[in-house]
Amino acid sequence: MHYSIVRYIQGQILKIEGALLLVPALTGVLYREWEASSYFLVALICEAIGILLALRKPAKFVLYAREGMVSVALAWIVMSLFGALPFVLCGDIPSFSNALFEIISGFTTTGASILENVEALSHASLMWRSFSHWVGGMGVIVFMLAIIPMASGYNMQLMKAESPGPSVGKLVPHVKESAKILYLIYISLTGIQLVLLLLTGMAGFDALCITFGTAGTGGFGVLNSSCGAYTGLQQNIITIFMLAFGVNFNAYYFLLGKDRKQILRMEEVRWYLIIVAASILLICLNVRGMFHSWQEAFHHSAFQVASVITTTGYSTVDFDLWPMFSKMILVALMFCGACAGSTGGGIKVSRILILFKAVRVEIRHYMHPRAVNTMKMDGKAIDKSIFRGVLVYLAAYTFVFAASVLILALDPVQNFTTDFTAVAATFNNIGPGLDAVGPAMNFNGLSLLSKYVLMFDMLAGRLELFPMLIFFLPSTWKKNI
Amino acid sequence: MHYSIVRYIQGQILKIEGALLLVPALTGVLYREWEASSYFLVALICEAIGILLALRKPAKFVLYAREGMVSVALAWIVMSLFGALPFVLCGDIPSFSNALFEIISGFTTTGASILENVEALSHASLMWRSFSHWVGGMGVIVFMLAIIPMASGYNMQLMKAESPGPSVGKLVPHVKESAKILYLIYISLTGIQLVLLLLTGMAGFDALCITFGTAGTGGFGVLNSSCGAYTGLQQNIITIFMLAFGVNFNAYYFLLGKDRKQILRMEEVRWYLIIVAASILLICLNVRGMFHSWQEAFHHSAFQVASVITTTGYSTVDFDLWPMFSKMILVALMFCGACAGSTGGGIKVSRILILFKAVRVEIRHYMHPRAVNTMKMDGKAIDKSIFRGVLVYLAAYTFVFAASVLILALDPVQNFTTDFTAVAATFNNIGPGLDAVGPAMNFNGLSLLSKYVLMFDMLAGRLELFPMLIFFLPSTWKKNI
Repeated sequence: MHYSIVRYIQGQILKIEGALLLVPALTGVLYREWEASSYFLVALICEAIGILLALRKPAKFVLYAREGMVSVALAWIVMSLFGALPFVLCGDIPSFSNALFEIISGFTTTGASILENVEALSHASLMWRSFSHWVGGMGVIVFMLAIIPMASGYNMQLMKAESPGPSVGKLVPHVKESAKILYLIYISLTGIQLVLLLLTGMAGFDALCITFGTAGTGGFGVLNSSCGAYTGLQQNIITIFMLAFGVNFNAYYFLLGKDRKQILRMEEVRWYLIIVAASILLICLNVRGMFHSWQEAFHHSAFQVASVITTTGYSTVDFDLWPMFSKMILVALMFCGACAGSTGGGIKVSRILILFKAVRVEIRHYMHPRAVNTMKMDGKAIDKSIFRGVLVYLAAYTFVFAASVLILALDPVQNFTTDFTAVAATFNNIGPGLDAVGPAMNFNGLSLLSKYVLMFDMLAGRLELFPMLIFFLPSTWKKNI
Repeated sequence: MHYSIVRYIQGQILKIEGALLLVPALTGVLYREWEASSYFLVALICEAIGILLALRKPAKFVLYAREGMVSVALAWIVMSLFGALPFVLCGDIPSFSNALFEIISGFTTTGASILENVEALSHASLMWRSFSHWVGGMGVIVFMLAIIPMASGYNMQLMKAESPGPSVGKLVPHVKESAKILYLIYISLTGIQLVLLLLTGMAGFDALCITFGTAGTGGFGVLNSSCGAYTGLQQNIITIFMLAFGVNFNAYYFLLGKDRKQILRMEEVRWYLIIVAASILLICLNVRGMFHSWQEAFHHSAFQVASVITTTGYSTVDFDLWPMFSKMILVALMFCGACAGSTGGGIKVSRILILFKAVRVEIRHYMHPRAVNTMKMDGKAIDKSIFRGVLVYLAAYTFVFAASVLILALDPVQNFTTDFTAVAATFNNIGPGLDAVGPAMNFNGLSLLSKYVLMFDMLAGRLELFPMLIFFLPSTWKKNI
C-alpha cells in the first residue's frame, strides 16, 4: 500500500470539504443563526488538517486499483466524520452517532433520517443536509478530479471506484475533461430546476434545498411532510427532475453533441423509461380507490415511482398505507434503481438488463445448442469482463444484504418487514422503507448496532461494494503486498 | 421438437406412476378403507394411457437439451395431474386445485399443505402424500433411467434436467448404472431409518410415512403437530437422517468405494456441516430462554435447523414464535439449501460456495492485478461454464422470485412477510414459511391465483428453473426449430 498517495488525496478532499462547509455557514449568517459559527469552525479545522495532509506531494502518482479503492472509501468516511461535527457542535443533533448517520445518509444521497422533527433544525443545518446530497450525487472524487491537477492517467482508478454502473464510460479521452463535462451538465440541470421552482413561487430556501435533494437523488426535505405540502405544479416539476437526474448523463452529452441518434441506441435509458411508465400505470390502477380522481391517483403514483426508482426518497403521501401490490412494486423498484452514470442508486437498470440478457442467452443455448449467441448492449457486444463483473457484483450484493438483515434482526423491537426494507432502503440509497422505517417514520428507533450496519450499507451501496469491502479487509493493510 | 420421444417418455412415466399408486391403494386395503378403490381406479387409468402412449417407439432416440428439458417438465406436470385425481375421487381433498397443490407439494418434496386437519385423511391418502415425497426426492426420471432400457447416451440430458446442483456428477460412466447406484443408496438409507424408528416403538404406519418424508426431504406428516408429538429419541433420529439425506450422495458412494479420502476433499459437504453447526449454535443461544434447559434448546434448534436447511419442513415447535434473529437465520437457510446431488432443495451449498469464491477472486484481483487467480473446488479448477451456469441460475432465480412475490401481493389478505416467505418456502421446496404460512398454519387461505403461482414455483424450484422456463416459452413449441 502506497500510503503517501492515500494521505495526499485525503488532504485534498478535506480542503474541498472545508470550502463546501461555507455554504451552510453563510446560510446561517443570512438567517442570523448562531449555529453558523460551528460550521465556520469545522470549515477551518478541515482546511487546516487538509493543508497539513496535502503539504508534501507523494513521490510518484502511481495509483493502482487497490490504492484507488482505499482512497475513495477512506475519503467518504473522512468526509462523513468531519461533516457530522457541525451538527453535534451546534446542538441540532446532539448524538455523534446520529449526526454521523445523518451526514452519511446525506453524502450517499440516501435521505434516511434519524430526525423526528426536521422543522426544528437551524437553516444552516438544513442547508448542510441538502447540500451534502448535491455534493455526494456526482461525487467528491469526481469533483476533485475536475479541479485539481493530478498528473498521469492513473486517476481513472479513482473515477472507476466512485462512479456507479457496471462500466465507466469516459465521455472524452481525458478523465479531467470528462469530470468537468459531468459537473457542467449537473450544474446546468440543477440551475434549471431551481429557476422553475422559484417561478412557481416556492420560497428561495426551500427551492434550493429541494433542488439539491432532487439533483443528488437524495431525499432530505425541509418539512416534516417531505414534499406533501408543496403545490401540484411544484410536485410535478420535482417528479420530472427526479426522473431526469436518474438518466445516464451520457444521454445529455449526446444531446448536446452532433450525433444525437446515439441516445436512441441507449437501451438502458429506453428500459428505464419503460419500467417507470409500467410501474406508474400499475400503481395508478391499484391505488385509484384511495384518491378522488384518476388524475390525482396518477399524480401521486408518478411522484412516488419517480422518487423510488431514482432512489431519491421524497414522498407526497405515506405509501406505507398503499395496498400490498403497490408497495411490492415500489420495493422491486428500490432494488432496480436508476441508470448507471446518473446520480441514482440501486442495482442499476443496465445491470438488470445484462442479467436478463444472460438468462435469455442461456435459454437460447438450450434451444439451439449449435448457434452462436452473443450478448449485445446498445448494438455492441458486451465484453465478457463486464458480464462477469455484473454477476460478481450481484453475488457480493446478496451476501452483504443477507448479512445486514441478519444483524438487524438482533434489534429486539423490529419485525421482518422493517429489517428487510431498512436494509433495502439504505443499501440502495433510497431513504424510507416500510413499516417502522416508512415514509412517515424515521430511523431513530433502531439500536446503535443497527445504525452502524446501515451506515456501512449506505456507503457500500453508494460506492458499489468493492471499495468498502476492500477497505475493511485486514489484508489490504499489510505492508508491501 | 421431436414429439415422438417426448410422448414416449410420458407413456413410460405414466406406467411407473400406475405402479406407484398401488402403494397407497394397498395401504387402503390394509386399513379396510373404501378410499382404496379410487387409488386402484387411477392406477388403472395411468396404466392404460401409459401403455397407449408408449406403444409406438420413437423412430430414433435422439434427445437434445431442449427435448430433455421439455420431457422432464412435462413428466412432472403429467404425474401431478394424475396424482391429484385420487384425492378428489375419494373426497379427501374435494377441490382439484387444492389436490393439485398438495400432490405437487408432495412430488417436489416441498411439504406445503392446504390441509387444515391432516388427521382427518384416510390412511391411503396419507400414504400417497408421504410416498410422493420419496418418489420425488430422487426423481422419477432417474428411476425410469435405472429400470427402462433406453439406447444411446442421450439420456444424460434427462438426468441433467432432473438432478439438482450446478453440475451432474456421474458416478460411473453409464447413466443407467449411476441411476441404479443412487437408488440403491437411497433405498438403503431409507431402510435404516425405518428400522431405527420402528425399534423406538413408533407405529409402523407413522414410521413409514415419516421416513418417506425424511428421505425425500419433503415434510408432510401424519399428525397435525408435524413431529411435535414424537419422543425426543425419535425426533433425534429424524434430525440425523434429515441431515444425512441433505448430503451429496456421492459421499456415500465414496464411503463404500476404495478411495474414502475423496470425501474429505468434498468442500461442499464440509461447508454444509459448518453452516449447520453454526446455525444450531446461534439459534440455541438465541432461544435458550424459551426452553427449560440448554439440552432442550439444543434439541429443538438442531431439529429445526436440520429441517430447514435440508428443506424438509418438519417441525417440533412453532418457530414462527421464535425471536427475529433465529427466524432470520432460518430464512437464510431456506435460500441456502442442502448439498447438490442430495434430495434437498434450495440454491444449494455448492452454488453459494462458488459465488463466495467468485467474490473472493474479484477482491484478490483488485489487490494483486497481475496475479493469476483460478477458482478451485474440491482441489480442482472450476470450469468456466459451471461458473457461468451458477450465475445465470442466480439471475433467473431472482427474477422468478421477484415476479412471484409481486403476483402474490395481489392477494388481498396477505402481508409482506407472508408473501415473501410463502414464495421462499415453496420455491426452495421447504414447506412452511412465516406468519400466515408458518409451521402452525397452512396455504389454504391463499387465493387461487397465488396457489397456481406457488405450484409453478415448487416445480421450478425442484427442477432448477430452466426446464419449467423452457416448457412455458411459446417458441419452444414451434415446429422444427
